[in-house]
Amino acid sequence: MEYISGVKQKETVSVQDILTKDLIGTEVKANGAIHNLRDMGEVSFLVLRQGDGVIQCVFEEGTNLTLKDLREGMAIEVRGIVAKEDRAPNGFEIRLKAIKILSAPTDAQLPIAINKWKLNTSLETILNNRPVTLRNLRERAKFKIQEGVVRGFRDFLHAEKFVEIRTPKIGARGAEGGANIFKLEYFGKHAVLAQSPQFYKQTMVGVYDRVFEVAPVFRAEKHNTSRHLNEYTSMDFEMGFIDGFEDIMAMETGALQYIVELLKKDYAKEIATLKVELPKVDKIPQVRFDEAKRLVSEKYKREIKNPYDLEPEEEVLIGKYFKEEYNSDFVFVTHYPTKKRPFYAMEDPTDRTFTLSFDLLFRGIEITTGGQRIHDYGELLKKIEDRGMTTEGMEHYMMIFKYGMPPHGGLGIGLERLTMKLIGEDNVRETTLFPRDLNRLEP
Amino acid sequence: MEYISGVKQKETVSVQDILTKDLIGTEVKANGAIHNLRDMGEVSFLVLRQGDGVIQCVFEEGTNLTLKDLREGMAIEVRGIVAKEDRAPNGFEIRLKAIKILSAPTDAQLPIAINKWKLNTSLETILNNRPVTLRNLRERAKFKIQEGVVRGFRDFLHAEKFVEIRTPKIGARGAEGGANIFKLEYFGKHAVLAQSPQFYKQTMVGVYDRVFEVAPVFRAEKHNTSRHLNEYTSMDFEMGFIDGFEDIMAMETGALQYIVELLKKDYAKEIATLKVELPKVDKIPQVRFDEAKRLVSEKYKREIKNPYDLEPEEEVLIGKYFKEEYNSDFVFVTHYPTKKRPFYAMEDPTDRTFTLSFDLLFRGIEITTGGQRIHDYGELLKKIEDRGMTTEGMEHYMMIFKYGMPPHGGLGIGLERLTMKLIGEDNVRETTLFPRDLNRLEP
Repeated sequence: MEYISGVKQKETVSVQDILTKDLIGTEVKANGAIHNLRDMGEVSFLVLRQGDGVIQCVFEEGTNLTLKDLREGMAIEVRGIVAKEDRAPNGFEIRLKAIKILSAPTDAQLPIAINKWKLNTSLETILNNRPVTLRNLRERAKFKIQEGVVRGFRDFLHAEKFVEIRTPKIGARGAEGGANIFKLEYFGKHAVLAQSPQFYKQTMVGVYDRVFEVAPVFRAEKHNTSRHLNEYTSMDFEMGFIDGFEDIMAMETGALQYIVELLKKDYAKEIATLKVELPKVDKIPQVRFDEAKRLVSEKYKREIKNPYDLEPEEEVLIGKYFKEEYNSDFVFVTHYPTKKRPFYAMEDPTDRTFTLSFDLLFRGIEITTGGQRIHDYGELLKKIEDRGMTTEGMEHYMMIFKYGMPPHGGLGIGLERLTMKLIGEDNVRETTLFPRDLNRLEP
Repeated sequence: MEYISGVKQKETVSVQDILTKDLIGTEVKANGAIHNLRDMGEVSFLVLRQGDGVIQCVFEEGTNLTLKDLREGMAIEVRGIVAKEDRAPNGFEIRLKAIKILSAPTDAQLPIAINKWKLNTSLETILNNRPVTLRNLRERAKFKIQEGVVRGFRDFLHAEKFVEIRTPKIGARGAEGGANIFKLEYFGKHAVLAQSPQFYKQTMVGVYDRVFEVAPVFRAEKHNTSRHLNEYTSMDFEMGFIDGFEDIMAMETGALQYIVELLKKDYAKEIATLKVELPKVDKIPQVRFDEAKRLVSEKYKREIKNPYDLEPEEEVLIGKYFKEEYNSDFVFVTHYPTKKRPFYAMEDPTDRTFTLSFDLLFRGIEITTGGQRIHDYGELLKKIEDRGMTTEGMEHYMMIFKYGMPPHGGLGIGLERLTMKLIGEDNVRETTLFPRDLNRLEP
């Protein structure tokens, strides 16, 4: 009988191997894609693109293939001697002995020169050609950083005893209500796509006390702006036995602190590639919603048009205010008006026109909505009735309160928005692998 | 200005704190739900359910509240002295000084006694009441183990330099084709829900060489069996620069080895709760598809009806065969017939009626489908044309081959099926938090 017994060490080396294993002067094999071919007259170079970096390779007398035999985009394996070379990326190069072609592209010209440092074209063109423009070193660095954000979020919450859950994306009704729900037919029944895991994560607080989920959510919003997507990744957590909604903000602050440290440690190369200025997150100021409106109205001479909502421009100004006055990239805006929050939001007992809730603004944009939830069955039922709603279709949600729920709350973080502001982009499509918006369903 | 500066240590303790911090003899506070109240005549107990365990609490003379003041399902905070008690779970109990009620359920009777060791009722009833039946200790242990499976999968692949990706679940067309696609309207366009991240993960191999994703997939299959779900979690990876499809099986074997070790280490309590017998996974036998059919046909006197497909019963028999003959819970079945595999599957150059592909069977059920993919543009185009298909709607997929793809392949693992067989269940709904099937869209 033949057996498979686990991963065998490969003969080929990565950039990381060469940097950490003292391979200077030794013969190595390495594979990758041809990122660039450069004929400098006296000397010719081949830049090999690997998943985690590039390796400069230089043609020698006796190399079995020459520039003419090769094309950008080929998958190859090279063999050669590693040599110190200060002018090369990472300080070394491979002096080529042999090149083996593993696969070749058809000879079509690339629609965009992906091996340039910046893709000098419109976002529209970049997205239309996303399957290959992502091979650009700066483009792919963005999504490595995004991986780091998710890893940090998860690892931090795991250490804080949160349990990871997976809740269904097809359901009978939406948690948030409203018109922005995608509908589908489900074996003759009406179904919808989840706008958020809200009801399920609250349900799971009754099971594990603390839970989190990182998963897609779907919003059929007709906004075509630089900050909206119709499918995005929501990083959600929900926690029980809280003393107040400050516990939730504290947990998020802790998560952000952890994420920033993880990025510094494990994603330094991508941070450097994109010249990212990581935010300070040792402490985050908090300000009441009404107070925030008043502050920016005074400082920036702007009339308050709607006392119950924040316009995007106001968010920008609040961000600006806290950067200028407190040198903070973040600000928690608390106590949103009850009428602008969902029925399950807990009202402030000292003034029921406001809720024990918050948004987190980061560099002028809302990246998180959170707050304490109502945990008492009777109170929740009354709120539903007061709003002219019914519990029809929410029986399974109501069940958890009937049989007991601790004081609890949580939040949802928009991953793409957080990544966008983290790396200094201004369109959320820049930090979405394959964005879905009003006009874009492909690639 | 008020600031939030991160997570503050709570005064309350967990089971884990008591076990690791030598708190015997000291006064502690602990919160949780009342899992059980027991009046034993001379002595009364309260079992406190926390996210990660239960704590036996015993009423003392002078405790501020008595059994009569309490109900199961209440969220409470207790204060008392930790004492060694061998008959209690984890070997200790809390002798109660004071109990504070944080929230109370309405007085409705629970539909099911969730504090019994086993829920003695039908799966149907358990699922109908899932939001509360999950509070049962055995039920919730299943999904902790499931968390461990996902963590193990991710952590192993991360260490093997795979990059985590997030691909869209709404798209213009399905990757696998066929009729089992959920359709939806997307701002006046036709859209579908992703059956798999196949095209996207291949695309991302051209970017990072190695990628993985753990995310929901959607199949509009009309099967109502113990092994099918209409929404499930697919653990996918895809890797470039492979020497053959054995590399993919080796990577999966490595992942399974890592997962089993992680479960032993971090999920020992849940493993014990469910009396799980973890499989041996040091080596996994591999057998060709046609050979596997022949072996079970001979040994179990079963006629081969369809030489091109495995019936579920045959999968069971193959599992039985390799358990009996080689004492293995797993078997890789390789070289599936070309006509039963998707167009992108690479054919075996020595016999094009078979593909360089495999399924992994675990205790008699398919939990993985994988294989090498075609990487040459011309070969792929020819295969598409030979099948009478067109590339219409696949332009973005074809683009990656046009501009060069390395030899590559990958797989998808059904998380719920893997968890089901791991813990010895026989219905995939047992290991899905909120299953979606032909008849079930709630809770």
